[in-house]
Amino acid sequence: MSRNYAKRMSHFGTSFLRDIYAMLFDPELIGFCGGSPAEELYPMTDYIVAANKAFEKYGAKALSYDVTDGFEPLRKMTADARMKKVGVDVGADEIMIINGSQQGLDFVARLFIDEGDVIITEGPTYMAALNSFNACMPKIVQVSMDENGMKMDELEKALCENKNTKFIYTIPDFQNPSGICMSEERRKRMVQLAKDHDVIIVEDNPYNELRYNGNLIPAIKSFDDDGRVVYLGTYSKIIVPGARIGWICCSLDLRQQFVKLKQCVDLQPNTTSQKELATYIEMFDLEKHIDSLPSFYKKKSAVMLGAMDKHFPKWAKYNSPDGGLFVWVELPKSIDAMELFNRCVAEEKVAFMPGQIFFDEAKGNENYMRMSYSSSSDEDIEAGIERIARVLKTYDV
Amino acid sequence: MSRNYAKRMSHFGTSFLRDIYAMLFDPELIGFCGGSPAEELYPMTDYIVAANKAFEKYGAKALSYDVTDGFEPLRKMTADARMKKVGVDVGADEIMIINGSQQGLDFVARLFIDEGDVIITEGPTYMAALNSFNACMPKIVQVSMDENGMKMDELEKALCENKNTKFIYTIPDFQNPSGICMSEERRKRMVQLAKDHDVIIVEDNPYNELRYNGNLIPAIKSFDDDGRVVYLGTYSKIIVPGARIGWICCSLDLRQQFVKLKQCVDLQPNTTSQKELATYIEMFDLEKHIDSLPSFYKKKSAVMLGAMDKHFPKWAKYNSPDGGLFVWVELPKSIDAMELFNRCVAEEKVAFMPGQIFFDEAKGNENYMRMSYSSSSDEDIEAGIERIARVLKTYDV
Repeated sequence: MSRNYAKRMSHFGTSFLRDIYAMLFDPELIGFCGGSPAEELYPMTDYIVAANKAFEKYGAKALSYDVTDGFEPLRKMTADARMKKVGVDVGADEIMIINGSQQGLDFVARLFIDEGDVIITEGPTYMAALNSFNACMPKIVQVSMDENGMKMDELEKALCENKNTKFIYTIPDFQNPSGICMSEERRKRMVQLAKDHDVIIVEDNPYNELRYNGNLIPAIKSFDDDGRVVYLGTYSKIIVPGARIGWICCSLDLRQQFVKLKQCVDLQPNTTSQKELATYIEMFDLEKHIDSLPSFYKKKSAVMLGAMDKHFPKWAKYNSPDGGLFVWVELPKSIDAMELFNRCVAEEKVAFMPGQIFFDEAKGNENYMRMSYSSSSDEDIEAGIERIARVLKTYDV
Repeated sequence: MSRNYAKRMSHFGTSFLRDIYAMLFDPELIGFCGGSPAEELYPMTDYIVAANKAFEKYGAKALSYDVTDGFEPLRKMTADARMKKVGVDVGADEIMIINGSQQGLDFVARLFIDEGDVIITEGPTYMAALNSFNACMPKIVQVSMDENGMKMDELEKALCENKNTKFIYTIPDFQNPSGICMSEERRKRMVQLAKDHDVIIVEDNPYNELRYNGNLIPAIKSFDDDGRVVYLGTYSKIIVPGARIGWICCSLDLRQQFVKLKQCVDLQPNTTSQKELATYIEMFDLEKHIDSLPSFYKKKSAVMLGAMDKHFPKWAKYNSPDGGLFVWVELPKSIDAMELFNRCVAEEKVAFMPGQIFFDEAKGNENYMRMSYSSSSDEDIEAGIERIARVLKTYDV
């Protein structure tokens, strides 16, 4: 029989990370691939207490169908704590719960993108965002970054040249994969440019509470005075990812459209996990828990950077991030990171994310590696970096 | 600022049920709207035991990221028990876990439908399926039913007239909203017609285990010998809906496409709920639990049918279903069920689903009601039917 798929299916790929996911369970492999928070940071004991309390408190309502836009107490907690912390003053009605912020990426794509519309992203950017967007067949324009984030002159040029731009997609804090933070000045400038060109900003901000150096910079959404910033947040990196709880914070008219999409794609978020998380927040001190995370990641990043300093050839360049989960490594142009990846896995049982998957156009961008330090032991970080270094040293640069 | 949405957004609506969902929590309102299983049937005590056991057994892995296609033990249990029971012999690899079968509807739409492609459904059919499909802008052709399900001569005619048909969508058991079961002969005939015209069949089968009269009819998928039937199942109606666990059973090449979609839309199903459900199935007797359900619904349907016999005007016609959750009522053509709905809510605080929302073309199909008997007490069923009857009797037929 023939398989006559819709055109969109040939416009996006499988996710490299998800494809190699099973491989990462190989106990002998040291993996620096994922963006997983460290499992030892999960507040397991308290979470289990909260889960039982949720069953006791809500009974069958912890296992029933529930509203499409998300459990109201959890929406209120999200507005009052998470959004307030990044400088955004909203009520529960401007929050909608979704299956991790990934679902928000799919939703903004489906809400805004017709085939051929332009969206502007940082280059490099989160590969699974590119995947979600590409399923709606846009033209993607990538703008480069410096140490203060997306370059505003390049962004302005891109907006002028692409009148059919629907939105600017940005990860302003500890950008995935580069680790860069956008300066406050540029955040304000981006909002102004978005106004001038009447486009939406999609602010994807999973890592802003994982800062270990310097002060938190207010969200781009905090500078939004006419409802053009759609903010995507997630509980995945600050408590647990398997509950699949993220949120969209946006103006009421946009929220109505997202609710319509949610009804059409899967009716509602998971009832049990929402009630477990809300009960956890009621019973325990989530702020204290979150405050305990950055020092852990700071130590991990120091271990990784120290190991790189010690083992990597001098021609490997990398930044020293102020938070988040990743170090971004630039290799000489002559090294193809995908080939390096394959050799590292085969010869040394160590893995990282080859940089080209974070670019819409891989060509010319083959010489980067994204290294996650979040979920390996110190010993594994040290050993894994040494393994990669052994392969790197075989290259004649 | 302007809101420049993608074209697809104007091609589907919000779900009527989801829009009135909050209203249904009004304690004074008697609602026959939802397709919710009865909460008193949830195996609460055992489920909580299983939830705790899952945390004990899997530790942090009950709250972590996990694979895209679903927890392997749960996929195996689904293949070995649920699919085997309906005559389908598959392994875990042909099962993929999704967020309730609703997500499967979105996935088949996105996998197959380009704008203008034809899909064929029963008329009436599940309104949220129409919604999912319409988001991909197909032309929908509806085929009428008799007491044995979709009429095969009409289906053949529709296939001949629409060469760009991508799939036939059917709910063969206790069809939503009509309650009709498709005969075994027609199931085989549908597979043959799908082969002749080289189209896919999407078999949506949430209710087949809720049969209280007669014998289970094998799934359409059981007659599929060349991988053209995509079967959608769900744990929502047989254990709990809030865990949002459904599945797709299909051939490996289609499954690969669905995994690609899952990566792009929300990465993976909820880790916690999958492990809780798998642990429940390991520890307790799900088959025994499921076997206990139909007698409950049989009693409920008898209460509703009895109340209708007693209170409804003779010109209201309804069937006596053999399973599932719904009674479908036909009113005289002169009565508009949407107007009736509004009057029933305002005058008598009682609600049902107006039939026109189950048709792609409401015009000419305004005179039906879908009545769910699953989640009301006997007293509420009796009182609610009497309330509706009071409004019905004001019509001069």
